[in-house]
Amino acid sequence: MQPRRITIVGVGLLGGSMGLALRSRAKDCKIVGYGHRRETLDAALQMHALHEGYEQPGPAVRGSDLVVLCTPVGLLRPMLEQIAPLLDRGALVTDVGSTKRSVVEAAEAILPAHARFVGSHPMAGSERRGIGAARADLYDHALCIVTRTERTDLAALEQIESFWRLLGMRTCRTTPEEHDRRLADISHLPHAVAAALVAIQEDPSLALTGKGFLDLTRIAGGDSVLWRDIFLDNRDNVRKSIRHLSEQLKTLSDLLEPGKAEALQAWLEQSARRRQKLLDEKKQST
Amino acid sequence: MQPRRITIVGVGLLGGSMGLALRSRAKDCKIVGYGHRRETLDAALQMHALHEGYEQPGPAVRGSDLVVLCTPVGLLRPMLEQIAPLLDRGALVTDVGSTKRSVVEAAEAILPAHARFVGSHPMAGSERRGIGAARADLYDHALCIVTRTERTDLAALEQIESFWRLLGMRTCRTTPEEHDRRLADISHLPHAVAAALVAIQEDPSLALTGKGFLDLTRIAGGDSVLWRDIFLDNRDNVRKSIRHLSEQLKTLSDLLEPGKAEALQAWLEQSARRRQKLLDEKKQST
Repeated sequence: MQPRRITIVGVGLLGGSMGLALRSRAKDCKIVGYGHRRETLDAALQMHALHEGYEQPGPAVRGSDLVVLCTPVGLLRPMLEQIAPLLDRGALVTDVGSTKRSVVEAAEAILPAHARFVGSHPMAGSERRGIGAARADLYDHALCIVTRTERTDLAALEQIESFWRLLGMRTCRTTPEEHDRRLADISHLPHAVAAALVAIQEDPSLALTGKGFLDLTRIAGGDSVLWRDIFLDNRDNVRKSIRHLSEQLKTLSDLLEPGKAEALQAWLEQSARRRQKLLDEKKQST
Repeated sequence: MQPRRITIVGVGLLGGSMGLALRSRAKDCKIVGYGHRRETLDAALQMHALHEGYEQPGPAVRGSDLVVLCTPVGLLRPMLEQIAPLLDRGALVTDVGSTKRSVVEAAEAILPAHARFVGSHPMAGSERRGIGAARADLYDHALCIVTRTERTDLAALEQIESFWRLLGMRTCRTTPEEHDRRLADISHLPHAVAAALVAIQEDPSLALTGKGFLDLTRIAGGDSVLWRDIFLDNRDNVRKSIRHLSEQLKTLSDLLEPGKAEALQAWLEQSARRRQKLLDEKKQST
């Protein structure tokens, strides 16, 4: 899908990078930004991430065939309410939120019948944020999960997939439920663990850490408001993931006996081998 | 300390890198290797990590004023027994093991009174191993923890510290007990967690992961025999660290309520800020 006019709602890292990528990949597309802060819009205009930037939703949303919500998870519902009365007939709407059940449910309830919504989660990002961190290649080669429900319009789904592929992404489909369950395991839990690993340290222990510990806890440096909202929105799954991890660590703890050395080694070996397999697969796919 | 003749016991990543670093930093020092496999010794000789390489301990250890044990934690005790009768009067002995209580206790029990032992843990390494991964700058700028007990000879302690500084390292002192307790928190627990994070994943979830997940679990790719022995040797502390982390994750789990959003954000913020402070300190010190 080559949008004719796109509205990017929220011009931060993800929205700004989207504008930059579209400039070279969809030369005929008018890129319009909507945001609360004039300063941010001006910065985006100056770096050519946008053609037009508005502080009001009306002029930003009206006339667009694609609207992409790039605001944090906690602001998606009020934003849907704001844009709902402004959408053109047939307009496509998607988002970039890290959780999918609540936004898909809200969109299907709030948006008018003449617009079509498909949830998206482009798995690209950085622990940096804001328009200053935007870059044209942020989405390159990364995976975008798009969601499908009983109410999803198949033509809209395919158009949204082709939009992400236009940005250089690979795409795959899940239900919002499956998305949130798997993301709790592969993204939200790791974030929780990284933060907990920092939290339990005594200061003199931190002084002994090296680059490895900083690398390992890098995601704990993420924006706390953003993550608070992700955790709250997906709390049932995150709780389950925490429970699974704690059980797995208990299993390991029970293996820490000289008489169980073989089983301990097998447990370690299994994870090392699984990770190596994953690494090999990722190398092949890029 | 500039050793006159050094014996490197075990010529893998750490031993080989030590030889390479000494070649340029201690030009008058004779670098002798002791290992079981002729092939490895030949590879080390060929890359100029050693001047001489022996498959027998006698010719390797006799005549050296410094012996550094670079074998895995699980082999340190039998190696101490093997070299004990061969040590010159006044010879210094140290090691590079990732745990310190057991090796220091074994060394103080096994080595003859005319030799002097100081435990070391140079915190340098890689998930790669073997002489093929050795490099002259492995130790540069990293931290080496040296251990002090009631029986430690202070002159020997200072000589060992100056040896590590010769290799480009910073040094600090702890007791073996403090070392093992802190390392459980900052190194052994993170390894356990990385492996557990891989272990709990379903295959379709792993397919959704990106570079972030691979980075985060990088240490889970380490050698399973090596880590088995570290975990077993330090099992009392590792169990405590696992318990602390599980408690911390339980705290987080309890904060996942919309009514506790503020406390949740504060919890996340605290870890993000602590990590940032650590990052700033590390940047300043390098």
